[in-house]
Order: sequence, then structure tokens, then C-alpha cells
Amino acid sequence: MRGFEAFEKTQRLIVVAAHPDDLETICGGAICKLTHQGVKVFSVNCTLGDIGTQDAATIRPALASTRLAETEEAARILGIERTYNLGHHDGELLPDLELRAQIARLYRLTQADTLVTFDPFWAGQIHPDHRAAGQAALDAYMPSKMPLYRPEQINETGAGLGCIERVFLFSTSREPDIYFEVTEVYETKLAACMAHRSQFPTGEESLEWMKERDEQAGSVIEVKYAELFKEMAVW
Amino acid sequence: MRGFEAFEKTQRLIVVAAHPDDLETICGGAICKLTHQGVKVFSVNCTLGDIGTQDAATIRPALASTRLAETEEAARILGIERTYNLGHHDGELLPDLELRAQIARLYRLTQADTLVTFDPFWAGQIHPDHRAAGQAALDAYMPSKMPLYRPEQINETGAGLGCIERVFLFSTSREPDIYFEVTEVYETKLAACMAHRSQFPTGEESLEWMKERDEQAGSVIEVKYAELFKEMAVW
Amino acid sequence: MRGFEAFEKTQRLIVVAAHPDDLETICGGAICKLTHQGVKVFSVNCTLGDIGTQDAATIRPALASTRLAETEEAARILGIERTYNLGHHDGELLPDLELRAQIARLYRLTQADTLVTFDPFWAGQIHPDHRAAGQAALDAYMPSKMPLYRPEQINETGAGLGCIERVFLFSTSREPDIYFEVTEVYETKLAACMAHRSQFPTGEESLEWMKERDEQAGSVIEVKYAELFKEMAVW
Amino acid sequence: MRGFEAFEKTQRLIVVAAHPDDLETICGGAICKLTHQGVKVFSVNCTLGDIGTQDAATIRPALASTRLAETEEAARILGIERTYNLGHHDGELLPDLELRAQIARLYRLTQADTLVTFDPFWAGQIHPDHRAAGQAALDAYMPSKMPLYRPEQINETGAGLGCIERVFLFSTSREPDIYFEVTEVYETKLAACMAHRSQFPTGEESLEWMKERDEQAGSVIEVKYAELFKEMAVW
Amino acid sequence: MRGFEAFEKTQRLIVVAAHPDDLETICGGAICKLTHQGVKVFSVNCTLGDIGTQDAATIRPALASTRLAETEEAARILGIERTYNLGHHDGELLPDLELRAQIARLYRLTQADTLVTFDPFWAGQIHPDHRAAGQAALDAYMPSKMPLYRPEQINETGAGLGCIERVFLFSTSREPDIYFEVTEVYETKLAACMAHRSQFPTGEESLEWMKERDEQAGSVIEVKYAELFKEMAVW
Amino acid sequence: MRGFEAFEKTQRLIVVAAHPDDLETICGGAICKLTHQGVKVFSVNCTLGDIGTQDAATIRPALASTRLAETEEAARILGIERTYNLGHHDGELLPDLELRAQIARLYRLTQADTLVTFDPFWAGQIHPDHRAAGQAALDAYMPSKMPLYRPEQINETGAGLGCIERVFLFSTSREPDIYFEVTEVYETKLAACMAHRSQFPTGEESLEWMKERDEQAGSVIEVKYAELFKEMAVW
Repeated sequence: MRGFEAFEKTQRLIVVAAHPDDLETICGGAICKLTHQGVKVFSVNCTLGDIGTQDAATIRPALASTRLAETEEAARILGIERTYNLGHHDGELLPDLELRAQIARLYRLTQADTLVTFDPFWAGQIHPDHRAAGQAALDAYMPSKMPLYRPEQINETGAGLGCIERVFLFSTSREPDIYFEVTEVYETKLAACMAHRSQFPTGEESLEWMKERDEQAGSVIEVKYAELFKEMAVW
Repeated sequence: MRGFEAFEKTQRLIVVAAHPDDLETICGGAICKLTHQGVKVFSVNCTLGDIGTQDAATIRPALASTRLAETEEAARILGIERTYNLGHHDGELLPDLELRAQIARLYRLTQADTLVTFDPFWAGQIHPDHRAAGQAALDAYMPSKMPLYRPEQINETGAGLGCIERVFLFSTSREPDIYFEVTEVYETKLAACMAHRSQFPTGEESLEWMKERDEQAGSVIEVKYAELFKEMAVW
Repeated sequence: MRGFEAFEKTQRLIVVAAHPDDLETICGGAICKLTHQGVKVFSVNCTLGDIGTQDAATIRPALASTRLAETEEAARILGIERTYNLGHHDGELLPDLELRAQIARLYRLTQADTLVTFDPFWAGQIHPDHRAAGQAALDAYMPSKMPLYRPEQINETGAGLGCIERVFLFSTSREPDIYFEVTEVYETKLAACMAHRSQFPTGEESLEWMKERDEQAGSVIEVKYAELFKEMAVW
Repeated sequence: MRGFEAFEKTQRLIVVAAHPDDLETICGGAICKLTHQGVKVFSVNCTLGDIGTQDAATIRPALASTRLAETEEAARILGIERTYNLGHHDGELLPDLELRAQIARLYRLTQADTLVTFDPFWAGQIHPDHRAAGQAALDAYMPSKMPLYRPEQINETGAGLGCIERVFLFSTSREPDIYFEVTEVYETKLAACMAHRSQFPTGEESLEWMKERDEQAGSVIEVKYAELFKEMAVW
Repeated sequence: MRGFEAFEKTQRLIVVAAHPDDLETICGGAICKLTHQGVKVFSVNCTLGDIGTQDAATIRPALASTRLAETEEAARILGIERTYNLGHHDGELLPDLELRAQIARLYRLTQADTLVTFDPFWAGQIHPDHRAAGQAALDAYMPSKMPLYRPEQINETGAGLGCIERVFLFSTSREPDIYFEVTEVYETKLAACMAHRSQFPTGEESLEWMKERDEQAGSVIEVKYAELFKEMAVW
Repeated sequence: MRGFEAFEKTQRLIVVAAHPDDLETICGGAICKLTHQGVKVFSVNCTLGDIGTQDAATIRPALASTRLAETEEAARILGIERTYNLGHHDGELLPDLELRAQIARLYRLTQADTLVTFDPFWAGQIHPDHRAAGQAALDAYMPSKMPLYRPEQINETGAGLGCIERVFLFSTSREPDIYFEVTEVYETKLAACMAHRSQFPTGEESLEWMKERDEQAGSVIEVKYAELFKEMAVW
């Protein structure tokens, strides 16, 4: 069982999530600690999160705009280098060739060495967007390293072949092997989550479920708060 | 390990299957007992079952018509409130956005509180339609509850937001946690199955495999016949 | 735990792989022994393997042509009856209805009784083409047996209904139940692999990883080299 | 301006229409005269015609079955060699690669030398299925002649390379250059149309619009009834 | 040659356009005069207009939100009953089955008797979205009248079968047959156009091209300003 | 009626064709004269031309490789700056969003000011690939100029916003307005065509049809050989 040291070789990390606030609530603490250590972190949200409300009168592009701004604010709090939104519609993300290519492009552009994403094989995952994001993120790993796959991506300023070496999954039923303590940055994690005001309008109170989950993970390694990951072997 | 009581809060139940006769042979007994208790049951078949014959001279739409009529007859026997057929072709069902939307619409229209469907993650599932039906049924769960997802569906007479609270899977390799005794309604289950005359032309004899399977399940809880389900946690 | 005898009823075997060289490196030994026993073996590669190089100056169709020729040479070495290439692009294979139909056609045309393919459910599979090939191969199993599915395929000279009876998976996390010793044909396996000169330009040296893997499998049954399979129950 | 003689070299003719009854009402007279002359005629309907009713209670596959039977009856009346239905849904036909391949297959299987179809370029065509059928029929012309296009089609019993040499369009705004007198077979044309009882339940009365149209065409060449075609140059 | 009287039977009119501001600049005058006469007008924009800027720093959903608001303001100025936006992305509209169904739904929901849209057959149309919008609008006409086409649409509150009787095209090379004088409402047309501030930031000055075009049309019938339409015969 | 001078402002010209040899046979003379004048010409073939043979034993990727080499040779003869092949399959080109984006990327990368392509509206065009290539080329014109359309394309080295100002169509039924004399470069045109040895194995003899066509065009302006274009107004 490992903790923080699982990421010790990581210098450039990319998180592929489905919706604005996935990164923050699932692994905002780990990301925060890593950016403090000098790791460059890139955040990718595949969808706009544009059905993320119970208010039927909401205009979808307006919600999308709000959530893009919230994502920027949370990124500033966590020290994230840059955020990307792939523009797909919430609730209808598909792990198709277009999404694969969009993600491969970001592996090549960010030159990330580490990927963090949803486990697409978790049989308890009820949200189709989570599965789609994780699947496409894994599917893009191999082609991104091949120069004949979408070669125009490599012509972009700053881009190179994909160079991810490590993959960590979250939201998984696989036995986690990484318990990452986040106690000391938990206030920052909460602040980043609360930057998503459209989702957590009542502030910390709307995040009790998250605190409980993170406490439960922490209790395994006898700390207050932890976040869980499973490393996936890649070749 | 639970039995009948797993469904005690269920008032409106929707079964999403792939082919006419899936519901009847897999969980016809449970459905029958539930309708006797006053549960309103809605049956959805994603495909027409229109390659379900070894007779190469069959006209596909004619077979589809026959099977739609057989489905209605079986539904009367089991006390099912209403049947829906989504019109896709047998052997070619895909868990795409269109199927997801069709199923979400029925969650909203029937106002079902409980979903019963195939486990799409069963690694032993060789029938692609079974996997597709189960996948789409799970994928529709979350979006059906969001008012900005396909909002026109909510305008239909009688429709509202999706309100499924419980999900039960069948045809799964996950450890079943519900053994539902169906001994006392087994004659009715058999009658409903035999209503599918195009599939079981020699009557009860063509259903020996089903009886064996249901007896084996029954033997675990020391009754004559049982049907198995696994509850999937949803949030 | 079984070995060679798992294939004792096999007379016509079809391997559905993703890229030229998958069959050779994964199960080239078993195939070789089976063809020596008189089994007719048909090899299907779903993709052209046309991004299989690190040389960015390569022309993709030229690489594809080279690899088709390498495949023919390897097939001659292993005694394979016939090879098929489905023409899809490397790194972008999808388990869609078109691929399913292409594979079902070959089940019908070859009249294979046994299928060998990738396990599409392996959660550790990082190559999307491997998953897609295995998924489509399983998805084609059932429809290929139904006369109303793509009936024109049955009109082709030599074709009949699909008649696969046994399915064996490779590249799987499921507990393997077949350890197939290949020690005595290992030189032939190596020769077949090295026929793929575009992939293994330095010859045997570039195949050390394969030898290690096959030795590790062999050690379980105390032989020098073995290949692993898991039988999947079908109905 | 030509008449019957435009077809003088025709020995095997294929009509690609969208719905059951298109052929009969548009060119049933010409077809009848040609079959009387010994021309082998093959009829292709791309859709099942399964929304062809104003009765909302109709079951679509049942309507499809009825119309398939009506098509057979009409074909017998007109002396058509064989009918094909491509199984697409009425009102949703698309000129995609699948439809193109289905039609190319029939060019190859029937060995037709002459094609008759809708003009897809008619800017007054309000029915999308008519445009789609004509477009796909023209799009299939060229590939059907190339051996590397869908080569498995050529393996079917009786098939060969496509060999269409002449293309005639109907429902066109282009100046018709063929006025085909059909007076002497008009009773047969009417009988074939009326075989489509689901469409023309009141018999001849429901076909007044057709008689008017055919009379108007006839008046140009001073006969009672005529049907119009425009030859399209092909290479 | 007709004018205003071409619309004399119109009571409920639907305009299917591609982008916010299409309706206003092309036929805003005619729409204004018709709403003054008591005609209920429904405006449909297929896309969000979300690439409609030369400023590369713009966030697409933010631009979409702005343009939705501008559309509402323009609608108020012109007296339009209700606006709909189908949410597709600017520059990438396709006349596919989904768009067809979305438009058919609005024919059924608005119970419009008259359709106004782009001529999809104009060979001089360089904007693909304009062609797609017009094509889908025509393609939806016929199916919207058939009860078995997407029957759930008819269940929505207020909906019925499609009942369009008249179709008028704009942006066409066909000889216009309707010159609709708009001189007396031209100030209102200009105001509606200028409500699209994101497009015409310099106000009337940015609309000189429109005034020139409308003056040219007017000059044919010797008035100051006119808008042009071509009626398309439908059945 | 214009000639050479229609291109007088052209400095960078892009030709979008469907198959290797389209450019050469249709407008190879004009291209040659323009490159002699210093115009930079970029050639785009959308398909590989990989069914372009009557020899059923041909391997498609091998034919594709051959034709890519032939294209390079012809380009050298004509003085073309650079050739691009978009890799689609011959006989199955679709004017979809992917093709549109591929072409828009080349408008941006080449910074062409002039586009030459097939007229997609020609009602006599029997080859679906020709129509698709022309359609996609026109469809890409407008989006390529908008910075929010596929913005990653603009990040490539050397790329900028699309800047095409002039569009010329060939293979059209529209009245040509440009007769471009090519007499003095006809030998070079022939040489470029004959570089496509796989298509014209008997040399000049296999190009008689082309010479006849070009002579006929020439006769209108009383020269030996001419090529025809129609300018399409764009905005």
C-alpha cells in the first residue's frame, strides 16, 4: 500500500474527468499537494456539465459558461496549470474516435507523464459520462504514442509524441493500492469544490457526503482524510 | 440474502429486456407475484426479436408482428400494465444515445421507482443484445432525472422527471443477493413463456432448460423454484 | 487444468486478432501444433496494423502492404489455411455493427467450430483495438447462427450458418484453465514472429519479452514454454 | 423525343424505389410492357413503407408485412421477376454507405443492364425517401463495377460485376426525353396499383390523381396515357 | 408575381433558419408585417451561432448565451410568438435524422400551416449550415404528417399531426415569385437586426449590405425595400 | 468569357479532388501554367484511389501505395508545391464533418487564396466521390475563416485563418465562364497524366478521351486545347 510516493516520478500530470467538479471532489486534495510540490497539472473535462441543475428554466449554454468560470476559479485555488474543456454535452458523452483523438491531442500537447482518470471497468459506475471519459482516456494512451496516429497533432506548437508512463484510476472497485493523505490541504480542497457554486449552493454543507467518503478512506490508514487510487499497469 | 422483501417499497416497476420472452423466462415468476401484490409493471423490449427463428424463409416483419402479439398475450397472463417495444433489430442492438433516450423517456413516462434489467458487465454474456439493453438501461438512469436532458419528454401527458430509486440486475456473475421464490406461480410463469409459441413450439418441453435453472436457484434456499437478482447501488 | 486436449474436438479454428503479429506472438505455438494435427486454421486480423512504426516518415498504405505480406509469410510457417484482413485502421478499431458483420461472415464462410480471440472484458487491457476485436468476435457468435441475420452472407460459395461451438480467450485476467505446452514448436513460433520484420527488426532479440512471458506460463506446468487460454462457456 | 425504343437494348432492368407502390404508380405501365417483351425486371424497395397509414393504432411491423405481400401480388400482375426489400424504415431512409452497398449488391446479383430510379436532384422533391433512394441508386452505379469494392458480393451464387449501361430517371424536373405510351396496359397498371389495398382502400377512385397525371403526359404525344423518363448519361 | 397576398391564408407560420439573425436579416420585414396582421410566428434556429465572431478568445457557450438573449430581444421587436433553438453547433449542422425529428416535432407542436426556410438546392449557397437547415426543414415536412413517425411527439401537450400546407423558400436561385414590400416596417426590421449586437457592433452601418440587397429587390416592384420568396409546391 | 486572367490575383491555389489523377486529367494544363507563373499550388486527394483497377487480385493498400507514388511524380512534372492525401477509401467518400475539418485544416495550413474543386451540384455527376469532394471543399470554406471552428488547427506551425477568396468549379453543368487555353503545356499535361501508369497502362492511347474533351473545349475559343472552369461567387 502506497501513498504520496506513488507519484514521486510525476512531473506533468493530466486528469481526464467528465464534468466540472469531478476533479475537485474526487482528487482535489492530491492535486493540490502535487502542485505544491511543483508538479504541473492539466485538467480536462470532457463535458460542459450543461445539464447539471434541477432548475428546468436554465439555459444550457448559460450554465456551461458559469461552470467554465467556476472551473477556472477552482483551478487557481488548486494551482492547476491549465484547464481544457472538450465541449461535449453532459449526459451524452461517448467514448468514440473523436473523443479519443481530442484526448490524445492533449497528451501530446501537455507532454504529461502521468494520467489520472475514471476506471471505466467499474461495474458499479452508474454515470455513463464517467465510464466514457475513463474509457476514452485509456483508449487514447496507446495511439498517442504512435507518430502515424493523427499526425497533424504533433505539428502544433509545443506538442510531441504522447509520453504517459503511469496511469492511476479513481472511482473503481478494484482494490485501491494508493491511499493519499490529504488532511493538511483539506481546507483548500473544500474551497476548490465550493468554487463550483452552481453545484454546491449551500457551501460546505452540500459537501458532507464528500467529507464522509474521504474520512472513511482516511480511517484505513489512520489519518483524517485520504483519497484513493489504483495504479493500472501499462506497457 | 433477501427474497421477495427486496421489492417491498416497489410500486411501479420497469423491466428493460432485449427480446420478447426475456422477461418471461428470466423473471416471469417474480413479475407475476409482484403484479398480484398490486405493483404496476411495465415491460420494455428493445428489439423486435425479428431474427428469432431457424426458418430461413421467414419474413422478418411478419415474425416481428407475431412476437408483438405473443408479448401482449404473455403480459395479460402475468398482469403486466403495459408493454413497449422500441423497434430495434434483433442481433444488432446498440447502447447508443438514441436507445438511451428511448429508455429514459419510458422512465419518465411510467414514473417507475424500480428498474430490473440485464447486467451489462457480466463477462460471460455472449448475446450482444443483452449487454446493450442492460447498458442502455443503466446509462439512462442518471440523465432521466435531469430536467435539461431531452426536456421535450417531460411535456408528454403523464410524464415527469425520472424517479427510479432501486436497480436490480439479472443474468449476472455478481454474487446474487436476492433469491425470489416463485414456486406458487410457476404454472403462470410457464403459461406466459408458452404464449411465445414462435419460440417454444413444443410447449413445456422446450422449456426444460428454464425449469432446471430455476430449480437449481431454488435449491439454494430450499424451495422448488426461484429467480435470482443482484441489487446495484445507485445514487 | 487442461492442455492440448481442450482442442481435441476442434477441426476448423478461427483466430480473431487485431493486428498482424498478434496471433503469432500470443498463440503461434498452439496454432502450429494444431495445424500439425490437421486442424484447419483461419487467421483474421481486423486492422492493417498501419500505425505500427515509430518512423514518422512512413506512408501508411505502404506499411499496410508490407504487413500483409509478412502475415502471409508467417501463415505459411505456421501452416495456416488462409488469412483475412478486414482493412480497418490501426488504433481506431470499433466493435460496431459493420465489424460484427464482417466477422460473422467469416464464421459462416470458414465453417469454423472453434473461436480464439482477445478477452474484451479484461480490465487491464490498455490497447483499444484488442478490446474491440475480442468484443466484435464475441458479438458475432450468436447472430452468425441465425439465418435471418445478414442472409446474403449465406449465399456465398461454400458458406453456411455459423457453427462455432467452443470459444477460447487470450489476454485475459480470468484464471486461465488451459496451459498449452509449445516447447517443441517454439523455434517455429519464433520464425513466424520474425517474419514480421517491420515489427521485430532485430530478430529474436526483439522478442525477449515474449519468451519471458511464455517461460513464466510454462513454469506453472513445469515445461519450458506454454501459452494460456480461458474457455468461455457459450450456449 | 423517344418512347418505348429507348429501352430497346434492355434485357435486365432494375427499378430502385423508396416505398411499395412507387414503381406501380410511377412506371407500372412501362414495366408491364417491358416484361411482356421478355425483359427481366427486378424491383427494389428501399423502405418497408411502414409509416404509410393515417391510422395511429397500426403496428408498424404488421403494416410492413401487409405491404410486402401487396408488393408480391403487384409484381405477379406486372410480370416482375423478383422483388427485394432492403428493410429500412419509411420516412428515415438515408443515402449512406450501407444503402449504397445494398443496392450495389443487387446490381451485381441481378446483372441488370438498365437502372430506373428517382432523380435525386429534383429541387421539387419534398419526400426525403425519394431523394435518398435515387441518390443511393446513382451512387452505387460506379462502385458496383469495381472488383475491389465489397468483393464478397461477387462471391454470391449468380453474381458478377455490376454491368448497368443505361440510367433512366423519373420524378424529375429535367426535361423528359422519353414519353412511354402505356395506354394498352393501363388496366394492368391499375390492377397492380390496386393490389396495394392498404394504400388505395377505395380502389380506382383513390388513383384519380395518377390517371390525371398520366393523361397529361399522354396528351403531349397525343395518346391516352404515358409515363415519363429522362435518360442520364453515364460513363 | 405576388406580394403580401401569398401569405393570406397563413395563420401560424414557422421559420426554420440556421443561425440567430438569419430570420431578422433575410425576412424580418415580412415577419413583422405578418405578426402585425395577427399571424402567429414561430422562429427556429438550428444552431447556437457559437462560432459567430472573429475574436479567438471568446468562450463558445458564452457567445451562445449572448446570442440566445439577442434572439429573444429581436423576437419581441418583431412580435414573434416563440423562439426555439435546437442547440447544434455553428458550422457543423447536418441534415440528419435527429435534426429532421427535432424540426418535425416543432411542426407538430406549433401546428404551423406555413413553412419559411432556406432553399437547400441553391447551387450558390456556400454556407453548409444554411443548406442543412433548409434540407432538414423540407425533409421533416412529410414525416411530420404521418402518425407512426416518432409517435411520442404527438403525446406532448398541445401537439398534433403536422399540418403545413405552404412552403416558401428564401436564399434561392429559383426565380422568386413573391416580392414582399417591407418599406413601412423597415425601421423595425433594422431594430430587430441591431438587437444582434454581437454581430452588428457598429449598428446600422454594419447592415449596409442588407439595405442594398433589399433596395435592389424593391426596385423590381418599384418600392423602396422588398424581401423575396419562392413558393415550393408540396403535396 | 475569361481565360487565364481569371486567376491573375491567385498566389496560392489549392485543388481539392477525389482521386489521384483527377487533377491531372481535368485541369493539369491550367495548373502547369500557373505554377510556371509562380503560383504555389497544393493538391489534395480525398481518397487513396484504392479500388481503381479491374484486377480483382490487387491488394488495396498496395494499389494505394502505388498511386501515392504516381501522384508525387505527376506533381513534380506539374510543379506542384505539395500533395496531401486524406486517406479515405475510394468509392466510399462522404462529405461529413471529419472530411470538412480535414479540408479546412489544409486551407488554414496552406494559406491558399484560391480553391479549385468539383461542382457538387452537377446533376450529371455519377461518381459519388466527386460530389463528396466538391461538397466538402465548399462546406469547409466558411468555417475555415472562423477562429472558433476547430481552433487547434490554427496552432499548427505555419497555419492561420482560412483566407480563400476565389472559388472555381470544374465538372459542372453550369455555363463555364472560363476557357483556359492549355495548348502550349499540353505535352506536360500528358506526361503528368501518364505518370499515373496504374490507370493509363497503355500511355497516351488511354487518354484519347481526354484529348477529345479538351479539344472540344478549345474549339469554342478557337485554340487547340482548353480546360473549363466556372467561378462561384462567395462572400
